[in-house]
Formats: sequence, C-alpha cells, structure tokens
Amino acid sequence: MRIGELSARTGVPAATIKYYVREGLLSGGERRSHNQVEYGEEHVRRLRLVRAMVEVGSVPIAKVREVLAEIEDPGRDLDSTLGVASRALSQHRVPAAEPAAEDLETARGIVRRQGWASVDPDHGYIWTLADAIGRLREFGLIDMVDLTGEYARAAEIVADFDVRLLGTREERDEILEAMVIGTVLGDAIFEALRRIAQVEISGRIFQRGERHGDPQEDR
Amino acid sequence: MRIGELSARTGVPAATIKYYVREGLLSGGERRSHNQVEYGEEHVRRLRLVRAMVEVGSVPIAKVREVLAEIEDPGRDLDSTLGVASRALSQHRVPAAEPAAEDLETARGIVRRQGWASVDPDHGYIWTLADAIGRLREFGLIDMVDLTGEYARAAEIVADFDVRLLGTREERDEILEAMVIGTVLGDAIFEALRRIAQVEISGRIFQRGERHGDPQEDR
Repeated sequence: MRIGELSARTGVPAATIKYYVREGLLSGGERRSHNQVEYGEEHVRRLRLVRAMVEVGSVPIAKVREVLAEIEDPGRDLDSTLGVASRALSQHRVPAAEPAAEDLETARGIVRRQGWASVDPDHGYIWTLADAIGRLREFGLIDMVDLTGEYARAAEIVADFDVRLLGTREERDEILEAMVIGTVLGDAIFEALRRIAQVEISGRIFQRGERHGDPQEDR
Repeated sequence: MRIGELSARTGVPAATIKYYVREGLLSGGERRSHNQVEYGEEHVRRLRLVRAMVEVGSVPIAKVREVLAEIEDPGRDLDSTLGVASRALSQHRVPAAEPAAEDLETARGIVRRQGWASVDPDHGYIWTLADAIGRLREFGLIDMVDLTGEYARAAEIVADFDVRLLGTREERDEILEAMVIGTVLGDAIFEALRRIAQVEISGRIFQRGERHGDPQEDR
C-alpha cells in the first residue's frame, strides 16, 4: 500500500510516518519507482504499536526505540518482552531511592500472602508499592496499610482479565499494542469506576441520618 | 500549644503554617501575649487536612480554600462534602468537552448493570469513563470495553473498603483527610498491585512453552 493508505489505516499523518522512519521506529517501505514506496501489513502493526506507546502511554521517542529493539531480539520470550514494555510505561512511578526497609517488608508481605510467588522481591512495582505504604505510615494512616490485601484481591481480578485479553491476539506487535493501551487506559477506567463506586457507596453510608432536611431530597 | 509544637505534630514547617494562615486556609491561633500565640486540636486536624490536599493530592492553594469553605457550610451533609473534596482531586481527569453520545451510553450502561443507581448519569467520572472508552474504540480495541464489567466488580471491592475505612473516623476534618490521602495513594497502590499481578499471571500464561531453552529456567 502507499503511504496515504498506511496513514488512513493507522490514524498517523504521513509526515509523522516519515519522521518515525527517520528516527528508526519503523522500517522504510519498499521502493518501487522514483516516487512510489510500498508498505505492508507489518508496517500497519508496528505503526499502531508506536502510536499506542507515544500517544496513549506518553513514552518518549528514545524509549520507544529501546523497547522496539528489545522486541526484535529473537532470544526474548513474549513474557519478558511484555515486561520491557511495561517498565517503559511506568518509569515515572518507580521511586528513585530504595524505600525504607520496613515498608519494603510490608509490601513483600502483601505480595507473598496473595500467592504471587514468581515476582522478583526487588521488582520496580514492589518499590512503588513500598513507597506509597511509607507515605500512608508518614500520615499515621497505618490502618489503611493493614487492609491493602483487599486491594490485592481486586487487582488480581483486573490483571487476570488484562492478561486473558492479550491471549486473544496472535501477532507479537498486536499483543504489545493491546498491552500498552490496556495498561494506560485501564488505569484511567479503573480510577473512574472506583470513584463512581465511592459516590454510590458513600451515599448509602453517610447520607442517611445526617441530612438536615434538605428539600431536594427523596429521589 | 505553641507554633513549634503544632509544626512538630503535623510535619508542617512553622513558616508554612504562617503562610497558610495568611492565605486563609487556617484560622490564626489565640494571641496570649505580645509574642505568644496558642493553637488547639482543631488546628492540628485542619492542618493535616490541608497538608494532605496540597502534598498528596497536589490540589492548588486556591482550590483548597474553596474546598474548606464548602466544609464550613453548615447546610452541607458529609456525603456532599466528600463529593466536593473528591472533585477537587480529580479535575485534571474530567474531559473538557462532552464525550461522544455512544461512549456516554456505554459508560452509563456499565454503571447501570453494576446497580449503582444513585450516581448522576452526567457525573464527571462518568464523562471520564466515557472518554477512556472512546479512546479504546478509536484504537479498535472494543473487546476491552465489552469486559469492563470485570473492572467495575473489582472497583466495587476497593470502594467498599475505602468507604468503610472512613467510617472508623469521627471528626469531619479527619474523615476528609483520610479520604484525600486514601484516594490519591490508593490509586498508586492499586496501579502497583495491578502490575505486580500482571507480572505473576502473564508469567504463568506466556512463559510456558514459548521458551527457547533458557538455562536460567526451572525455578
């Protein structure tokens, strides 16, 4: 296909496609004549993946190039490729310094009790978790930490669903695209749903009996 | 107590306390003599709430002032005060323009099927949800939308836990402080747990049978 069709099928403007080729994020098409370059399905898939990382995941171009290099490495299995892409999406969340030992221990305990045995105890997200636990402790809200197991149970429901969705895809670039978009938009969707559910539940618990006879009531 | 003790008990430097008083976020203490001002427990609670909004929630000072004015309004019940504080935390997430009608309809359908009947169908978070659904649709990942019900179920587990935690507190400022910190740090904790669970589950599903005889295997 010509560049115009590639642009229409991926939603990426032709000038941006040329920029990605110059930056090494996309291989050039096959030159057929002086002013005709032909692109294939592999370009459609790669371009959608690049768009997902750049537009949805806000991953910097240099980082996208690194992730793509890892994907191309034939020695990597799909699981570790997913890990590379996932880390590229979450780097801003991982704390720069090692969290306090007691917070790390609390975070690892939550992971252990959940039976997540294959996760490296120094994984970046375990540091992220420990960091947030440290802030709760700093604010004296340690009772919130004690109950993080409920969060872990809900996170397992969501993650199980996330991973099963990837399993319905076949091409590696498509799996990674779905993972990038699902991870980033999934966070936004979960945040919105959590707040909507809070509105509903908090209405049930705090509204009754505390009203001052507001006449707009009784829906 | 003197300002030094107030500072020690809240973790807010004395200069910042004076700034908050000038900005109207905190009432001044009671002047006892030329150079002695006395603060009480209500200052401790209010200052912790302000700190939570500013430091953890990144709420701008002018917005904090608005939220505090709403809290002081004697006509407001606790539920609607929680709503005001929650909106101040999430304004950056609510889309500026109305989402597409079909995405709004999908979002409302998810909320309806979950039985969350008391939530306003034009609530800001329903717009946020619709906006994220629109992006999934734009990327052709509509199968992810179909399964958002799983997310809603998990969000209900988390929100139920969130709201029950607030119920263990008595003073209005303490409830709001726990809500602000719990909402913001809860998002970070859930994101980290979701990714840790993804690592665990994706390892189970994608690793087996795809390995290229990696000798580090077999743990």
